[in-house]
Amino acid sequence: MIQFEVLHTSRKSGARVGRIHTPHGIIDTPNFVAVGTNGTLKALDSDMVDSIGLQLMFCNTYHLLLQPGPDVVQKAGGLHSFIGRKMPIITDSGGFQVFSLLYGSVADELKSQGKSKHDKLVLKINEEGVLFRSYRDGQKILLTPESSVDAQKKLGADIIIPFDELPPFHIEESALNTSLDRTHRWEKRSLEHHKKNRNNQAMYGVIHGGICPILRKKSCEYLTQLDFDGFSIGGSFGKTKEQMVDMLKSTMPYLPKEKPNHLLGIGDLESLERCVPLGIDTFDSSYPTRAARHGHLLTKEGALKIINSENKSNFSPIEKDCDCYTCKRYTRAYLHHLFKAKEVTAHTLTTIHNLHFMVLHMKRYREMILDDLI
Amino acid sequence: MIQFEVLHTSRKSGARVGRIHTPHGIIDTPNFVAVGTNGTLKALDSDMVDSIGLQLMFCNTYHLLLQPGPDVVQKAGGLHSFIGRKMPIITDSGGFQVFSLLYGSVADELKSQGKSKHDKLVLKINEEGVLFRSYRDGQKILLTPESSVDAQKKLGADIIIPFDELPPFHIEESALNTSLDRTHRWEKRSLEHHKKNRNNQAMYGVIHGGICPILRKKSCEYLTQLDFDGFSIGGSFGKTKEQMVDMLKSTMPYLPKEKPNHLLGIGDLESLERCVPLGIDTFDSSYPTRAARHGHLLTKEGALKIINSENKSNFSPIEKDCDCYTCKRYTRAYLHHLFKAKEVTAHTLTTIHNLHFMVLHMKRYREMILDDLI
Repeated sequence: MIQFEVLHTSRKSGARVGRIHTPHGIIDTPNFVAVGTNGTLKALDSDMVDSIGLQLMFCNTYHLLLQPGPDVVQKAGGLHSFIGRKMPIITDSGGFQVFSLLYGSVADELKSQGKSKHDKLVLKINEEGVLFRSYRDGQKILLTPESSVDAQKKLGADIIIPFDELPPFHIEESALNTSLDRTHRWEKRSLEHHKKNRNNQAMYGVIHGGICPILRKKSCEYLTQLDFDGFSIGGSFGKTKEQMVDMLKSTMPYLPKEKPNHLLGIGDLESLERCVPLGIDTFDSSYPTRAARHGHLLTKEGALKIINSENKSNFSPIEKDCDCYTCKRYTRAYLHHLFKAKEVTAHTLTTIHNLHFMVLHMKRYREMILDDLI
Repeated sequence: MIQFEVLHTSRKSGARVGRIHTPHGIIDTPNFVAVGTNGTLKALDSDMVDSIGLQLMFCNTYHLLLQPGPDVVQKAGGLHSFIGRKMPIITDSGGFQVFSLLYGSVADELKSQGKSKHDKLVLKINEEGVLFRSYRDGQKILLTPESSVDAQKKLGADIIIPFDELPPFHIEESALNTSLDRTHRWEKRSLEHHKKNRNNQAMYGVIHGGICPILRKKSCEYLTQLDFDGFSIGGSFGKTKEQMVDMLKSTMPYLPKEKPNHLLGIGDLESLERCVPLGIDTFDSSYPTRAARHGHLLTKEGALKIINSENKSNFSPIEKDCDCYTCKRYTRAYLHHLFKAKEVTAHTLTTIHNLHFMVLHMKRYREMILDDLI
């Protein structure tokens, strides 16, 4: 289980500094959560991730369900033991990925008008749950609130997520309302099932309702009546950052201040700047790690494209005052060369830097909030 | 420059234990030399390679000539500084790769009857050297004994190799003899050029002559008259291990015992077992690192295919008594999963293990030689 304490709320905004105590240590908030879909951050090993100080790692139940399967992870003694991680882990329910098979992401949906190339993998959706086919071996898998929670029990993350429905972005408000009601029933079933065996895990409800303020409010009102340990904000956030920020502004007041909250799938620098003042506690995103693999490096002076020819003979580190593993040892010129030579060592070294940057970036936010500067 | 001392020669075979003192530390012999073509071992960073204790690393001048170019490396202060390596480095002349463009490897040649798909990149071969086209940007590059040595001066490895001709495997003996004479002229030119500015580097001559004992003897007799610091054995070794071993048996007696020798491009376990007793000091090969990326793990009990389903729920390390970074932290089950999930972290972790295995494997050889067991 978790304990949450709010240390300070800014006098200037809704931003707050807190601490989530979990069975695997403290998560200082606000904080960034890196995504290790398959039980590893791409191109890094768990020991390195721990040493960077990333306090919370996000793993995807959908992927781990298909490979290696929750039984293997349980036999290993849970995800921490399986992947060799000492610090906290959060898993999602698998719902997001299963419905993404059907609709694709919002971006995909905008391109493909609501048809995903994987839609044939989803066989049936009804009140019980979703029947889909594994893209790995063709096996049929039924994901329900109960089976998702069971899988997450076997994975054994510190924080788990109830099974929810991800409606397509293009949906009539009445259909969204119908979907919201089902999500609420599924989340309640997930919570009931979780409470039979808490297993020292916390469960965060998922607020839905798309970009409709009335439905978001309804979702908050319903879910905050249930005894979730925290709340995450999921579903569609709209097409633009403005729509997302507007949605959060109208939603946040309905979340209880004494429980931690999490913004699902968002963690780019601009969104952090917009959302930290709204009181969001944790943000997960694959942005900084994916950006690293594309040679987009995060620095206090802005983004740096390491592949650019100006770095060819630049024998400084990515950031002069950075004390990450990479900046202590290697130059921009060498990283530039490794990218040019298509060596994956480049991905490891730049991912370390970007993740280290995010850890410090969030620390700077916490310090600014404590000083009421944001 | 280097100093070589022979500590012990086995009473049972030609195997010997020695020590090469270089400007970047000691290389205990016999030893294995891993190949970091582009200035990195694939999926590892230099600091990790140093910590594994790999005493000599092989980098390819041909690749570094095209990317990032020797001038960039020189500006960085040489390869050690550019790639962040503290221990010794050896570079080749670029000859092998340029002629491989023309003929392919022996295996390619056997398949393609002496035509390589890259043969159009080689524009001209004459007494001066080889004119070829960069596959990266189409630029024409003239590689001569002098330009190869100049490039290797800029790279600044501890041990460098003179420019040689790699004749195709399928060649008449008279043509091989003509090629050998040219190689000898090129090697002499390389040495002369090197001696104008030794730059604290050692140069190993390359013994050629294919699988013809008479030509190998001729090559030894000619090259050992020149003041190379050591000798490498290159050119074609035949189609089978037997042919290679026969060639080495007839060649080794013509090499001076007081200088170190190196077998170019060979380092699989079976070859080591056959060649260490012949008195070979160092072996370079991409075998253990490439095998790791294919999930073939080296253990004292033989090869282990980590992808095999028997490892799915095996929560032991690769080797129980192995103290490598990977075995101390991760299980076979996790590595199996990372391979199944196509995560490059798998390559990093298995490469660490295989390289650590090679370091210990060669240490065991040295101990056995000291005890006259081989």
